[in-house]
Amino acid sequence: MHLVREIGVLKKIIRQYKKKGVIIGFVPTMGYLHEGHLSLVRIAKKKSQFVVVSIFVNPTQFGPREDLQEYPRALKKDLSLLRREDVDLVFYPTVKTMYPTDYKTYVEVQDLGKVLCGISRPSHFRGVTTVVLKLFNIVEPDIAVFGEKDYQQLIIINRMVKDFNLNVKIFGGMIIREKDGLAMSSRNIYLNQRQRRDAVVLYQSLQWIKHAFKNGLFNTSKAIEEIEKMISKRGGKIDYIEAVDKNTLKSVEILKKGTLVTLAVYFGKTRLIDNIVL
Amino acid sequence: MHLVREIGVLKKIIRQYKKKGVIIGFVPTMGYLHEGHLSLVRIAKKKSQFVVVSIFVNPTQFGPREDLQEYPRALKKDLSLLRREDVDLVFYPTVKTMYPTDYKTYVEVQDLGKVLCGISRPSHFRGVTTVVLKLFNIVEPDIAVFGEKDYQQLIIINRMVKDFNLNVKIFGGMIIREKDGLAMSSRNIYLNQRQRRDAVVLYQSLQWIKHAFKNGLFNTSKAIEEIEKMISKRGGKIDYIEAVDKNTLKSVEILKKGTLVTLAVYFGKTRLIDNIVL
Repeated sequence: MHLVREIGVLKKIIRQYKKKGVIIGFVPTMGYLHEGHLSLVRIAKKKSQFVVVSIFVNPTQFGPREDLQEYPRALKKDLSLLRREDVDLVFYPTVKTMYPTDYKTYVEVQDLGKVLCGISRPSHFRGVTTVVLKLFNIVEPDIAVFGEKDYQQLIIINRMVKDFNLNVKIFGGMIIREKDGLAMSSRNIYLNQRQRRDAVVLYQSLQWIKHAFKNGLFNTSKAIEEIEKMISKRGGKIDYIEAVDKNTLKSVEILKKGTLVTLAVYFGKTRLIDNIVL
Repeated sequence: MHLVREIGVLKKIIRQYKKKGVIIGFVPTMGYLHEGHLSLVRIAKKKSQFVVVSIFVNPTQFGPREDLQEYPRALKKDLSLLRREDVDLVFYPTVKTMYPTDYKTYVEVQDLGKVLCGISRPSHFRGVTTVVLKLFNIVEPDIAVFGEKDYQQLIIINRMVKDFNLNVKIFGGMIIREKDGLAMSSRNIYLNQRQRRDAVVLYQSLQWIKHAFKNGLFNTSKAIEEIEKMISKRGGKIDYIEAVDKNTLKSVEILKKGTLVTLAVYFGKTRLIDNIVL
C-alpha cells in the first residue's frame, strides 16, 4: 500500500497506472474510519483496479464554531484497516499542502447547498465541493464513491460533476448502521452513554415514517410532526427534519415513493444526521 | 480539422489522442478572431501536438447590461482562419450544451476578481473561471494559452489552476497591436472612425508611462494623473487606470520594474482594456 503525503508524488504514481489503462477508484474520507467508510472502499474495489483512499480533515468545510479541532483522528488504525481492505494507495496530505497561505479559489453550487445542512452550516458545502474537486484533480479517478448518509453532499457532488463536465463517475454507498440502527459516524464517539442510547431514535423515527407511509400516511407535516415528538421525547434537539425531492432537495407537501426524509439532530453538542428514501 | 459541437463527441476524439500520448494544446476564444487570437494558436502549435480551439461567447461572463447580444460573431471566417493555422479541432458548443437549464455550479476566486475589471464587471471573472474550468475538463489539455491583454484574467486563471491542482500548464501570449498601437480586440469593431483614431491614446499613454518610468518617474499617482489627462483629452471616459503588483493585483504607490499598469476606458459605449508591464 503506497502512503503518500505530497501531491507531486501522488500524481506521478497515478500517471504510471493511468498510462497502462488501469481504472482508478477513489474514496475521499476524513479518517477515523468505520464500517461505513470500509463499505465504500469495497464498492471502489469492485468498480476499479487501483483504489485510492484520501484521509484529510478538511478545514474549509467546518464553520468557525464547529468541531474542526476536536474532530477525531486515528491515522495508524485507519491505515491498518485500509491495508486489510487491500487499498492500493492512501493519500493523507497536510493542510498546508492542500491550502497554501495564499489560497483563494472555491466551488459554489447554488441553491442545493443553501438548504437542509446548508442552513446551520452555511459554508460547509462550499468547502466540501472545493476539496473534492481538488482531490479529483489530484487523483484523477475514473470512479469515486460517497456515502448516502450525507445524501445532500452526494446530490451536490453529482451536480458539480455534471456542471463542470468532470471525467469521473460517482457511486453512492448505502448507510451502514450499528446493530441497534444508529447510522455509523465518526462523530458517534462524542456521545455519552445516555446520548448513545437515545440517538437510536433517529433510526426508529425514520423507520416509523417509512411504515406509516406504506400504510397510507402521505401528509408531510403530520408525519414530520410525529417524528419530531418522538425525537424530542428522547432529548434530541432538532436542527431540521424535512421531506424533500431527492434530486432537487425542494420540500414536498405530499410524501411519495422516492421522497427523501432527512434530518439533523443534536444530542448534547453532537450533531447527527440520518435519512431514508421512501 | 475536426468541427465538434457535442461534448461527448469531443471527449471521445480527445481520449483517442491522449491514449497515444499526444500532447493536447488549447486556446479558448469567443470567436471573431483577429491576429491576437492567431498568435495564441501559434504558441499552442509550438508547445503541443494536437491543438484545440474553442469558440464560445460565454454568457456567464457578461453582466446584465453588457454586450452579450451584440458581441460580434463570424463563425465561417473564424473557421477558415483556423484552418489556415492548421488547427486540429474546433469546439463550438451551443449555450444549452454548456449551460443546461438547471445549471448551478461556479468557480469563485477571492480578491483577485474583485479589483480592476471586477469593480465594473462584478460577476465577469466568475463566468470566466467557470467556463474555462468546464472547457479544461472537456478538452483535457496539457497546455493552454491565454492573451496578456486580459492580464487580470491570466492571473486569475493561473490562480485557479494552482489552487484546484489542475493538470494543465498555462502560457501567456503578448498583446498584438494594430499598426498604430491599438491593442487588437474583437470589440474594436464597435468604434466609429473618430473613436478608432482617439483610442490609440491608450497605447500612447502606456508608452509614455514606460518612458517616464525609465527616466525616473516613480510616483504612481503623478504618473496616472498625467495619463488620465492624456486620455480624457481624446474623449476617453476612464473606468480605471491603476498601477498594481503583477501577481497580487494590489495597488502600488511606487512604480517598480515589473509593475503592471492597466486600464479600462470607454470610447462611446465601447469599453477597451490595455496594459503594460514596466
